[in-house]
Amino acid sequence: MYPNSLRNLIESFKLLPGIGEKSAERMAFYVLGLDSEKVSFFSESLNEVKNKIKKCPICNNITEEEQCSICSDESRNKDYLCILEDVKNIFMFEKIGNYHGYYHVLDSLIDPLEGINPEDIGLEKLLKRIKENSFKEVIIAIKPSIEGETTGLYIKKLLEGMNVKVTRIASGIPIGAEFEYIDSITLERAFNDRKEL
Amino acid sequence: MYPNSLRNLIESFKLLPGIGEKSAERMAFYVLGLDSEKVSFFSESLNEVKNKIKKCPICNNITEEEQCSICSDESRNKDYLCILEDVKNIFMFEKIGNYHGYYHVLDSLIDPLEGINPEDIGLEKLLKRIKENSFKEVIIAIKPSIEGETTGLYIKKLLEGMNVKVTRIASGIPIGAEFEYIDSITLERAFNDRKEL
Repeated sequence: MYPNSLRNLIESFKLLPGIGEKSAERMAFYVLGLDSEKVSFFSESLNEVKNKIKKCPICNNITEEEQCSICSDESRNKDYLCILEDVKNIFMFEKIGNYHGYYHVLDSLIDPLEGINPEDIGLEKLLKRIKENSFKEVIIAIKPSIEGETTGLYIKKLLEGMNVKVTRIASGIPIGAEFEYIDSITLERAFNDRKEL
Repeated sequence: MYPNSLRNLIESFKLLPGIGEKSAERMAFYVLGLDSEKVSFFSESLNEVKNKIKKCPICNNITEEEQCSICSDESRNKDYLCILEDVKNIFMFEKIGNYHGYYHVLDSLIDPLEGINPEDIGLEKLLKRIKENSFKEVIIAIKPSIEGETTGLYIKKLLEGMNVKVTRIASGIPIGAEFEYIDSITLERAFNDRKEL
Protein backbone atom coordinates (compact mmCIF):
# COMPACT_ATOMS: atom_id res chain seq x y z
CA MET A 1 0.00 0.00 0.00
CA TYR A 2 2.78 2.43 0.93
CA PRO A 3 5.43 3.20 -1.68
CA ASN A 4 8.32 0.73 -1.29
CA SER A 5 10.85 3.14 0.10
CA LEU A 6 8.39 4.38 2.73
CA ARG A 7 7.50 0.78 3.65
CA ASN A 8 11.23 0.05 4.10
CA LEU A 9 11.66 3.09 6.31
CA ILE A 10 8.69 2.03 8.45
CA GLU A 11 10.28 -1.43 8.81
CA SER A 12 13.57 0.25 9.75
CA PHE A 13 11.99 2.27 12.53
CA LYS A 14 10.33 -0.89 13.79
CA LEU A 15 13.80 -2.31 14.43
CA LEU A 16 14.10 0.15 17.32
CA PRO A 17 13.08 -0.80 20.85
CA GLY A 18 9.51 0.11 21.77
CA ILE A 19 8.56 1.22 18.25
CA GLY A 20 5.53 -0.51 16.75
CA GLU A 21 3.76 -0.09 13.43
CA LYS A 22 1.88 3.09 14.39
CA SER A 23 4.89 4.96 15.79
CA ALA A 24 7.04 3.79 12.88
CA GLU A 25 4.48 5.14 10.40
CA ARG A 26 4.36 8.43 12.23
CA MET A 27 8.15 8.72 12.17
CA ALA A 28 8.43 7.74 8.50
CA PHE A 29 5.87 10.36 7.46
CA TYR A 30 7.71 12.88 9.59
CA VAL A 31 10.94 12.07 7.74
CA LEU A 32 9.12 12.79 4.45
CA GLY A 33 8.65 16.34 5.66
CA LEU A 34 12.21 16.89 6.89
CA ASP A 35 14.87 18.87 4.97
CA SER A 36 17.07 16.73 2.75
CA GLU A 37 20.18 17.79 4.69
CA LYS A 38 18.70 16.56 7.95
CA VAL A 39 17.78 13.21 6.44
CA SER A 40 21.28 12.86 4.95
CA PHE A 41 22.76 13.68 8.34
CA PHE A 42 20.56 11.01 9.95
CA SER A 43 21.47 8.45 7.29
CA GLU A 44 25.20 9.17 7.60
CA SER A 45 25.08 9.08 11.40
CA LEU A 46 23.71 5.56 11.24
CA ASN A 47 26.52 4.39 8.99
CA GLU A 48 29.21 6.21 10.92
CA VAL A 49 28.15 4.72 14.24
CA LYS A 50 28.54 1.25 12.78
CA ASN A 51 31.76 2.01 10.90
CA LYS A 52 33.67 4.17 13.38
CA ILE A 53 32.75 2.94 16.82
CA LYS A 54 34.72 0.06 18.30
CA LYS A 55 35.47 -1.35 21.73
CA CYS A 56 38.26 0.16 23.81
CA PRO A 57 40.82 -2.68 24.13
CA ILE A 58 41.43 -1.80 27.78
CA CYS A 59 37.99 -1.33 29.32
CA ASN A 60 35.42 -2.29 26.60
CA ASN A 61 33.99 1.26 26.50
CA ILE A 62 32.95 2.48 23.04
CA THR A 63 35.38 4.72 21.20
CA GLU A 64 36.33 6.05 17.77
CA GLU A 65 40.04 6.20 18.78
CA GLU A 66 42.63 3.55 19.64
CA GLN A 67 41.68 3.88 23.30
CA CYS A 68 38.59 5.40 24.85
CA SER A 69 38.62 8.94 26.20
CA ILE A 70 38.59 7.70 29.79
CA CYS A 71 41.41 5.17 29.51
CA SER A 72 43.56 7.72 27.72
CA ASP A 73 42.89 10.39 30.38
CA GLU A 74 45.99 10.32 32.58
CA SER A 75 44.48 12.84 35.00
CA ARG A 76 41.89 10.41 36.36
CA ASN A 77 42.25 8.77 39.76
CA LYS A 78 44.31 5.61 39.33
CA ASP A 79 43.17 4.23 42.69
CA TYR A 80 39.68 3.28 41.56
CA LEU A 81 38.25 0.82 39.07
CA CYS A 82 34.49 0.60 38.65
CA ILE A 83 33.12 -2.62 37.14
CA LEU A 84 29.96 -2.31 35.03
CA GLU A 85 27.74 -4.65 33.09
CA ASP A 86 26.87 -2.23 30.30
CA VAL A 87 28.70 0.51 28.37
CA LYS A 88 25.70 2.80 28.82
CA ASN A 89 26.35 2.89 32.56
CA ILE A 90 29.70 4.61 32.02
CA PHE A 91 27.85 7.59 30.60
CA MET A 92 25.36 7.55 33.47
CA PHE A 93 28.15 7.73 36.05
CA GLU A 94 30.01 10.35 34.01
CA LYS A 95 26.87 12.51 33.93
CA ILE A 96 26.72 12.41 37.74
CA GLY A 97 30.33 13.49 37.58
CA ASN A 98 31.64 12.75 41.07
CA TYR A 99 33.56 9.58 40.20
CA HIS A 100 36.94 10.17 38.60
CA GLY A 101 38.45 6.69 38.52
CA TYR A 102 38.49 4.22 35.64
CA TYR A 103 35.86 1.78 34.38
CA HIS A 104 35.74 -1.79 33.17
CA VAL A 105 32.75 -3.17 31.27
CA LEU A 106 32.11 -6.92 31.50
CA ASP A 107 31.10 -8.84 28.38
CA SER A 108 28.06 -10.16 30.24
CA LEU A 109 26.87 -11.33 33.67
CA ILE A 110 27.24 -14.92 34.84
CA ASP A 111 23.97 -16.68 34.01
CA PRO A 112 24.30 -20.49 34.07
CA LEU A 113 20.66 -20.96 33.05
CA GLU A 114 21.46 -19.13 29.79
CA GLY A 115 24.73 -21.02 29.45
CA ILE A 116 26.86 -18.01 30.39
CA ASN A 117 29.59 -19.26 32.71
CA PRO A 118 32.34 -17.33 34.53
CA GLU A 119 34.78 -18.00 31.68
CA ASP A 120 32.44 -16.29 29.19
CA ILE A 121 32.22 -12.80 30.65
CA GLY A 122 35.74 -11.47 30.04
CA LEU A 123 37.17 -11.91 33.53
CA GLU A 124 40.64 -12.85 32.27
CA LYS A 125 41.03 -9.41 30.71
CA LEU A 126 39.77 -7.79 33.92
CA LEU A 127 42.10 -9.82 36.11
CA LYS A 128 45.10 -9.05 33.91
CA ARG A 129 44.24 -5.35 34.10
CA ILE A 130 43.96 -5.38 37.87
CA LYS A 131 47.26 -7.25 38.18
CA GLU A 132 49.08 -4.80 35.91
CA ASN A 133 47.76 -1.71 37.67
CA SER A 134 47.66 -0.64 41.29
CA PHE A 135 43.99 0.02 41.95
CA LYS A 136 43.24 0.40 45.65
CA GLU A 137 39.52 -0.19 45.30
CA VAL A 138 37.43 -2.15 42.83
CA ILE A 139 33.81 -0.95 42.91
CA ILE A 140 31.25 -3.41 41.61
CA ALA A 141 28.41 -1.35 40.14
CA ILE A 142 26.18 -4.07 38.78
CA LYS A 143 22.43 -4.19 39.23
CA PRO A 144 21.26 -6.31 42.18
CA SER A 145 19.72 -9.26 40.31
CA ILE A 146 20.55 -12.94 40.82
CA GLU A 147 23.00 -12.76 37.91
CA GLY A 148 24.43 -9.49 39.19
CA GLU A 149 24.94 -10.80 42.72
CA THR A 150 26.50 -14.03 41.44
CA THR A 151 28.88 -12.12 39.20
CA GLY A 152 29.80 -9.68 41.98
CA LEU A 153 30.55 -12.45 44.48
CA TYR A 154 32.56 -14.36 41.87
CA ILE A 155 34.71 -11.32 41.17
CA LYS A 156 35.19 -10.72 44.90
CA LYS A 157 36.43 -14.30 45.32
CA LEU A 158 38.70 -13.95 42.29
CA LEU A 159 40.37 -10.88 43.79
CA GLU A 160 40.89 -12.37 47.25
CA GLY A 161 44.47 -11.96 48.47
CA MET A 162 45.24 -9.35 45.82
CA ASN A 163 45.57 -6.39 48.17
CA VAL A 164 42.63 -4.56 46.64
CA LYS A 165 39.47 -3.52 48.45
CA VAL A 166 36.32 -4.81 46.73
CA THR A 167 33.12 -2.83 47.28
CA ARG A 168 29.64 -2.97 45.85
CA ILE A 169 27.34 0.02 45.32
CA ALA A 170 24.53 0.20 47.87
CA SER A 171 21.15 -1.27 47.19
CA GLY A 172 18.14 -0.07 49.15
CA ILE A 173 15.09 2.13 48.85
CA PRO A 174 15.31 4.52 45.88
CA ILE A 175 15.00 8.18 46.90
CA GLY A 176 11.37 9.27 46.73
CA ALA A 177 9.96 5.74 46.52
CA GLU A 178 6.95 4.59 48.52
CA PHE A 179 7.58 1.65 50.86
CA GLU A 180 4.50 -0.18 49.62
CA TYR A 181 5.95 -0.47 46.12
CA ILE A 182 9.30 -1.87 47.26
CA ASP A 183 9.83 -5.63 47.00
CA SER A 184 10.67 -7.52 50.18
CA ILE A 185 14.23 -8.46 49.17
CA THR A 186 15.13 -4.81 48.61
CA LEU A 187 13.51 -3.88 51.91
CA GLU A 188 15.41 -6.62 53.72
CA ARG A 189 18.70 -5.53 52.16
CA ALA A 190 18.01 -1.90 53.03
CA PHE A 191 17.30 -2.89 56.64
CA ASN A 192 20.43 -5.04 56.97
CA ASP A 193 22.65 -2.43 55.34
CA ARG A 194 21.39 0.39 57.61
CA LYS A 195 23.90 3.13 58.38
CA GLU A 196 24.38 5.11 61.57
CA LEU A 197 23.14 8.69 61.26
CA MET B 1 31.21 12.85 26.28
CA TYR B 2 29.82 10.38 23.74
CA PRO B 3 31.95 9.56 20.68
CA ASN B 4 31.10 12.01 17.89
CA SER B 5 29.29 9.57 15.65
CA LEU B 6 27.12 8.36 18.53
CA ARG B 7 26.37 11.98 19.52
CA ASN B 8 25.31 12.69 15.93
CA LEU B 9 23.04 9.66 15.90
CA ILE B 10 21.44 10.75 19.17
CA GLU B 11 20.82 14.20 17.64
CA SER B 12 19.36 12.51 14.56
CA PHE B 13 16.87 10.53 16.60
CA LYS B 14 15.92 13.71 18.43
CA LEU B 15 14.72 15.11 15.08
CA LEU B 16 11.80 12.67 15.29
CA PRO B 17 8.48 13.66 16.87
CA GLY B 18 8.16 12.78 20.55
CA ILE B 19 11.78 11.63 20.91
CA GLY B 20 13.77 13.38 23.63
CA GLU B 21 17.36 12.95 24.83
CA LYS B 22 16.69 9.79 26.88
CA SER B 23 14.78 7.91 24.16
CA ALA B 24 17.32 9.03 21.55
CA GLU B 25 20.19 7.70 23.68
CA ARG B 26 18.38 4.42 24.12
CA MET B 27 17.81 4.11 20.38
CA ALA B 28 21.39 5.04 19.49
CA PHE B 29 22.82 2.43 21.87
CA TYR B 30 20.41 -0.07 20.42
CA VAL B 31 21.70 0.68 16.92
CA LEU B 32 25.23 -0.03 18.18
CA GLY B 33 24.11 -3.58 18.87
CA LEU B 34 22.29 -4.15 15.55
CA ASP B 35 23.72 -6.16 12.64
CA SER B 36 25.57 -4.05 10.07
CA GLU B 37 23.15 -5.11 7.34
CA LYS B 38 20.18 -3.84 9.32
CA VAL B 39 21.84 -0.51 9.95
CA SER B 40 22.74 -0.18 6.25
CA PHE B 41 19.14 -0.98 5.36
CA PHE B 42 17.93 1.70 7.78
CA SER B 43 20.42 4.25 6.43
CA GLU B 44 19.50 3.51 2.81
CA SER B 45 15.77 3.63 3.54
CA LEU B 46 16.16 7.16 4.85
CA ASN B 47 17.95 8.29 1.70
CA GLU B 48 15.57 6.47 -0.61
CA VAL B 49 12.49 7.99 0.97
CA LYS B 50 13.90 11.45 0.31
CA ASN B 51 15.20 10.65 -3.17
CA LYS B 52 12.43 8.51 -4.61
CA ILE B 53 9.19 9.78 -3.14
CA LYS B 54 7.45 12.67 -4.85
CA LYS B 55 3.94 14.10 -5.05
CA CYS B 56 1.41 12.62 -7.44
CA PRO B 57 0.73 15.46 -9.93
CA ILE B 58 -2.99 14.63 -9.92
CA CYS B 59 -3.94 14.19 -6.26
CA ASN B 60 -0.83 15.11 -4.18
CA ASN B 61 -0.54 11.57 -2.76
CA ILE B 62 3.02 10.31 -2.34
CA THR B 63 4.41 8.03 -5.02
CA GLU B 64 7.62 6.66 -6.52
CA GLU B 65 6.02 6.52 -9.99
CA GLU B 66 4.78 9.17 -12.42
CA GLN B 67 1.31 8.90 -10.86
CA CYS B 68 0.28 7.39 -7.56
CA SER B 69 -1.12 3.87 -7.35
CA ILE B 70 -4.63 5.16 -6.73
CA CYS B 71 -4.80 7.69 -9.58
CA SER B 72 -3.43 5.09 -12.00
CA ASP B 73 -5.96 2.49 -10.88
CA GLU B 74 -8.66 2.61 -13.56
CA SER B 75 -10.82 0.12 -11.68
CA ARG B 76 -11.70 2.57 -8.90
CA ASN B 77 -15.09 4.25 -8.70
CA LYS B 78 -14.96 7.40 -10.82
CA ASP B 79 -18.07 8.84 -9.16
CA TYR B 80 -16.37 9.76 -5.90
CA LEU B 81 -13.64 12.20 -4.90
CA CYS B 82 -12.60 12.40 -1.26
CA ILE B 83 -10.84 15.60 -0.18
CA LEU B 84 -8.24 15.26 2.59
CA GLU B 85 -5.94 17.60 4.44
CA ASP B 86 -3.08 15.13 4.86
CA VAL B 87 -1.51 12.36 2.75
CA LYS B 88 -1.49 10.10 5.79
CA ASN B 89 -5.29 10.06 5.78
CA ILE B 90 -5.32 8.32 2.39
CA PHE B 91 -3.66 5.31 4.00
CA MET B 92 -6.08 5.42 6.92
CA PHE B 93 -9.08 5.27 4.59
CA GLU B 94 -7.42 2.61 2.44
CA LYS B 95 -6.87 0.46 5.52
CA ILE B 96 -10.58 0.62 6.30
CA GLY B 97 -11.04 -0.46 2.72
CA ASN B 98 -14.69 0.31 1.99
CA TYR B 99 -14.11 3.49 -0.05
CA HIS B 100 -13.11 2.85 -3.65
CA GLY B 101 -13.22 6.32 -5.17
CA TYR B 102 -10.34 8.73 -5.70
CA TYR B 103 -8.63 11.16 -3.32
CA HIS B 104 -7.36 14.72 -3.42
CA VAL B 105 -4.98 16.07 -0.78
CA LEU B 106 -5.05 19.81 -0.14
CA ASP B 107 -1.77 21.69 0.34
CA SER B 108 -3.11 23.06 3.64
CA LEU B 109 -6.26 24.28 5.37
CA ILE B 110 -7.42 27.88 5.17
CA ASP B 111 -6.04 29.64 8.25
CA PRO B 112 -6.10 33.46 7.90
CA LEU B 113 -4.47 33.94 11.32
CA GLU B 114 -1.44 32.07 10.01
CA GLY B 115 -1.60 33.95 6.70
CA ILE B 116 -2.92 30.93 4.80
CA ASN B 117 -5.66 32.20 2.48
CA PRO B 118 -7.92 30.27 0.06
CA GLU B 119 -5.50 30.90 -2.82
CA ASP B 120 -2.70 29.16 -0.88
CA ILE B 121 -4.15 25.69 -0.42
CA GLY B 122 -4.14 24.36 -3.98
CA LEU B 123 -7.82 24.84 -4.82
CA GLU B 124 -7.12 25.75 -8.46
CA LYS B 125 -5.71 22.29 -9.08
CA LEU B 126 -8.69 20.72 -7.29
CA LEU B 127 -11.20 22.78 -9.25
CA LYS B 128 -9.52 21.96 -12.55
CA ARG B 129 -9.61 18.28 -11.66
CA ILE B 130 -13.30 18.36 -10.77
CA LYS B 131 -14.12 20.24 -13.99
CA GLU B 132 -12.20 17.75 -16.14
CA ASN B 133 -13.79 14.69 -14.54
CA SER B 134 -17.36 13.67 -13.84
CA PHE B 135 -17.41 13.05 -10.10
CA LYS B 136 -20.92 12.75 -8.77
CA GLU B 137 -19.98 13.33 -5.16
CA VAL B 138 -17.18 15.23 -3.50
CA ILE B 139 -16.68 14.04 0.09
CA ILE B 140 -14.93 16.47 2.38
CA ALA B 141 -13.05 14.39 4.96
CA ILE B 142 -11.30 17.12 6.92
CA LYS B 143 -11.12 17.25 10.70
CA PRO B 144 -13.81 19.43 12.32
CA SER B 145 -11.66 22.36 13.52
CA ILE B 146 -12.24 26.04 12.77
CA GLU B 147 -9.78 25.80 9.87
CA GLY B 148 -11.32 22.55 8.69
CA GLU B 149 -14.88 23.91 8.76
CA THR B 150 -13.81 27.11 6.99
CA THR B 151 -12.03 25.16 4.29
CA GLY B 152 -14.96 22.78 3.85
CA LEU B 153 -17.49 25.58 3.52
CA TYR B 154 -15.23 27.44 1.09
CA ILE B 155 -14.93 24.38 -1.13
CA LYS B 156 -18.70 23.84 -0.98
CA LYS B 157 -19.26 27.43 -2.16
CA LEU B 158 -16.67 27.03 -4.89
CA LEU B 159 -18.45 23.98 -6.28
CA GLU B 160 -21.93 25.53 -6.25
CA GLY B 161 -23.71 25.13 -9.57
CA MET B 162 -21.26 22.47 -10.76
CA ASN B 163 -23.71 19.55 -10.67
CA VAL B 164 -21.74 17.70 -8.01
CA LYS B 165 -23.02 16.70 -4.60
CA VAL B 166 -20.80 17.96 -1.78
CA THR B 167 -20.84 16.00 1.47
CA ARG B 168 -18.83 16.11 4.66
CA ILE B 169 -17.97 13.11 6.86
CA ALA B 170 -20.03 13.01 10.05
CA SER B 171 -18.79 14.49 13.27
CA GLY B 172 -20.25 13.33 16.55
CA ILE B 173 -19.49 11.14 19.51
CA PRO B 174 -16.64 8.69 18.84
CA ILE B 175 -17.67 5.04 19.33
CA GLY B 176 -16.94 3.98 22.90
CA ALA B 177 -16.43 7.51 24.22
CA GLU B 178 -17.89 8.70 27.53
CA PHE B 179 -20.24 11.68 27.26
CA GLU B 180 -18.51 13.51 30.08
CA TYR B 181 -15.26 13.74 28.08
CA ILE B 182 -16.90 15.13 24.95
CA ASP B 183 -16.65 18.89 24.36
CA SER B 184 -19.89 20.83 24.04
CA ILE B 185 -19.47 21.74 20.36
CA THR B 186 -19.13 18.08 19.42
CA LEU B 187 -22.13 17.23 21.56
CA GLU B 188 -24.20 20.01 19.97
CA ARG B 189 -23.21 18.86 16.49
CA ALA B 190 -24.04 15.25 17.33
CA PHE B 191 -27.45 16.32 18.60
CA ASN B 192 -28.26 18.47 15.57
CA ASP B 193 -27.05 15.82 13.11
CA ARG B 194 -29.12 13.07 14.73
CA LYS B 195 -30.37 10.33 12.40
CA GLU B 196 -33.61 8.42 12.43
CA LEU B 197 -33.19 4.83 13.60
